[in-house]
Amino acid sequence: MADSLAQHPRLDVILHGDQAAIAPLLARHPDLASRIVVRHADRVVTMEDKPAQVMRHGAGTSMWSTIDAVRAGEAAAAVSCGNTGALMAVSMLRLRKLPGVNRPAIACLWPSRNPGGFNLMLDVGADVKAEADDLLQYAVMGASYARNGLKLTRPRVGILNVGTEEHKGRAELKEAHDRMAAVAQVSDFDYVGFVEGGDLPSARVDVIVTDGFTGNVALKTGEGTAKLISDFMREAFGAGLLSKFAALLALNSLKRLQRRIDPRRVNGGVFLGLNGTVVKSHGSADATGVSAAIGLAYQLSQVRFIDRLAARVASAEAAGQDAAQARADLAGTGSSPTE
Amino acid sequence: MADSLAQHPRLDVILHGDQAAIAPLLARHPDLASRIVVRHADRVVTMEDKPAQVMRHGAGTSMWSTIDAVRAGEAAAAVSCGNTGALMAVSMLRLRKLPGVNRPAIACLWPSRNPGGFNLMLDVGADVKAEADDLLQYAVMGASYARNGLKLTRPRVGILNVGTEEHKGRAELKEAHDRMAAVAQVSDFDYVGFVEGGDLPSARVDVIVTDGFTGNVALKTGEGTAKLISDFMREAFGAGLLSKFAALLALNSLKRLQRRIDPRRVNGGVFLGLNGTVVKSHGSADATGVSAAIGLAYQLSQVRFIDRLAARVASAEAAGQDAAQARADLAGTGSSPTE
Repeated sequence: MADSLAQHPRLDVILHGDQAAIAPLLARHPDLASRIVVRHADRVVTMEDKPAQVMRHGAGTSMWSTIDAVRAGEAAAAVSCGNTGALMAVSMLRLRKLPGVNRPAIACLWPSRNPGGFNLMLDVGADVKAEADDLLQYAVMGASYARNGLKLTRPRVGILNVGTEEHKGRAELKEAHDRMAAVAQVSDFDYVGFVEGGDLPSARVDVIVTDGFTGNVALKTGEGTAKLISDFMREAFGAGLLSKFAALLALNSLKRLQRRIDPRRVNGGVFLGLNGTVVKSHGSADATGVSAAIGLAYQLSQVRFIDRLAARVASAEAAGQDAAQARADLAGTGSSPTE
Repeated sequence: MADSLAQHPRLDVILHGDQAAIAPLLARHPDLASRIVVRHADRVVTMEDKPAQVMRHGAGTSMWSTIDAVRAGEAAAAVSCGNTGALMAVSMLRLRKLPGVNRPAIACLWPSRNPGGFNLMLDVGADVKAEADDLLQYAVMGASYARNGLKLTRPRVGILNVGTEEHKGRAELKEAHDRMAAVAQVSDFDYVGFVEGGDLPSARVDVIVTDGFTGNVALKTGEGTAKLISDFMREAFGAGLLSKFAALLALNSLKRLQRRIDPRRVNGGVFLGLNGTVVKSHGSADATGVSAAIGLAYQLSQVRFIDRLAARVASAEAAGQDAAQARADLAGTGSSPTE
């Protein structure tokens, strides 16, 4: 947090937690005292707490207090390293969903071959399923995030599937595929069609849309694979004197590689579809990771991201209703125009 | 193929395809002529052909002919690099499902931290969904494959989910979770509970069970991540003279690493749940990859894998019926004992 405050001179922080535990840590940074307010909370949400319990009995925890600061307009965004399920539950309860949003989503960044170095994937775990309507909304929200968070004027969106051919996959994916072009037109993104797991780091797409079950498995599989390779690499370079010498010489190359795939740089899942910005940092994040999450929250609040996102969702919804009406008219089902 | 024949002196091959194209290739290996029979086929199944079309009009293709050789008992196993969907469709049509199997599955190997170097995952793409019954059957089939293909006496099985806690995930996963312990007992494997994407290379599990949609996305995500890192690594070591020198010194380390994660070594998805062994090699496999797939097919036919698999499925099914009967008796629904 000290790093973030140093990086962003206009950033102030409200710190929610146990005053007695926080005070000695803050005492080490007297220069930052004027920019940090501590809000005491007696209790914390643990990683084992179930979301439903936290929704009922969570008032008074530091997590609840953090979200309520956004709700009250005191904070422009919330950052938490806590229990993801509980954080989403409390955020939905206290911030409420944006008008027109059915299922909020968690979006994460993914190292990629694109010039910016990252692709965006959602949902990575807010919900275990998504219907066609949800996938269309994820596309709209993901494109808005890519415009404001990744500075892409016209993001390219793809739907994650088991093949790129039109006939493959589940029914809801085919429906979303058929209706996506119309949504893309009003929402200023390009739809590239189905993409596969191998395309997550691809340069032919910026935003990858999927249900939260598949997205969560893909995210953790990618992280796990990167970890496995890095462990194997360490073992390979640790075996034998010549290898160790080579590793020493290769240190710069290895560091360059590490920077490109460092998960801490992409730390920060963003909750999309709520009346407020919430950034979920990895539970095991270190100072670099937490600083990245705070930086992301700061950037999004600077561009008034939620207002822009809400406007995008509203215009896509209006267009969707027009399209549904047109389909109904064509089909001659005679549904009322006020529907 | 020449590599495989050299490695396995008792292996013979029936080669299905265009005689005119094959003949000049075989002419280069006169020493192998006595062990290769060419079966001419006028047509091939292309990567663009839809499975349903191939099922109707596929007779006379090399793929159909290959599967029919297994059906007729001429071949002990089939190996194909072709269109996966079409290969599964033709295999189901011509070989039929094993008695008691509802959904066949494709199993693949995954580099892991286990002593043997590999974990097993299924289904990675035979079907886009799986109910609880299917997941239980995948566990039985996967454990049998692990015993016969990976030489593990008592494989450890996990269900892929978005968290390891019991309350997480989709309904069919929870049902499979609740019923798995009983199946594990009769089927001689250990059930370790839910595992996450990050556990695919883990040493705490040998067989990972999931639906074919999630499994396919995970497989391709893992492959794509490994490819991304290897490309980034090449770029990192290619930049600057010192890096290149270091890379040269590190060559042995890098090769050692490459061997552990080389996708060609794990080439060969095995179709489980059919009356015959079918191994699907990667479409882009080179000689090393195809040789690995042929070696796998040879190994499985040597141990009469299909007979063992069929026996395992049958005994699990019988136990499942007993358990269902017991549940029904307990619930007092009075279903007939012959059901």
